[in-house]
Amino acid sequence: MLTKLNLADGISAIPDFWSPRIVGELNGQHAKLARLKGEFVWHSHAEEDELFLVLKGRLRMDLRDGSVDLDEGDMLIVPRGVEHRPVAEDEVAVLLFEPVGTLNTGDAKDSRTVEEPEWLI
Amino acid sequence: MLTKLNLADGISAIPDFWSPRIVGELNGQHAKLARLKGEFVWHSHAEEDELFLVLKGRLRMDLRDGSVDLDEGDMLIVPRGVEHRPVAEDEVAVLLFEPVGTLNTGDAKDSRTVEEPEWLI
Repeated sequence: MLTKLNLADGISAIPDFWSPRIVGELNGQHAKLARLKGEFVWHSHAEEDELFLVLKGRLRMDLRDGSVDLDEGDMLIVPRGVEHRPVAEDEVAVLLFEPVGTLNTGDAKDSRTVEEPEWLI
Repeated sequence: MLTKLNLADGISAIPDFWSPRIVGELNGQHAKLARLKGEFVWHSHAEEDELFLVLKGRLRMDLRDGSVDLDEGDMLIVPRGVEHRPVAEDEVAVLLFEPVGTLNTGDAKDSRTVEEPEWLI
């Protein structure tokens, strides 16, 4: 039997910010949940497009030509090569879709880089 | 500048049931929105894993060894080759994530098969 996951329950099981947890794998992609708070690092992903879906809170996605405010239920795809910086003034919960192996900090490794993201369960 | 999409707004722009609309493309995958009501056809996808995320309502996913009830915020991945039948007693809104070219009815073509899904916009 297949197992469902409630995304809110998943988010509540994540102890730390900026540390995406894998919640599913399909077609070479990972679905990940993450809690964000504060200002992340500017980065891009050379080979990976990245989808953000805001589950709770408000996320500002800074881009080099402006920014996009994402509220609950808003989705944004950041294509490969596009520099971006997620900023969460207050806590935000997001669902991510991206290829297996995508680094959270892309080309900008720093102290928050997660080399091997863990499965949530 | 990148364009965001509010998923509830997207759902409200879909006129018919069982007719997924593409809302994003990334890494060879499509994100799709769909309104479901009633009982769909049993089918499987030979080469595609399929993710369902319930945005509104309750979806029952029948499987050959039982069924899974999905409420708002619940996510389920149906792996390739696994027969399934979505059943929506009342209207349900879902986000789908699956490879480009995935047929809604998989190996069970019928009157609701959408050969070329349209983009929502």
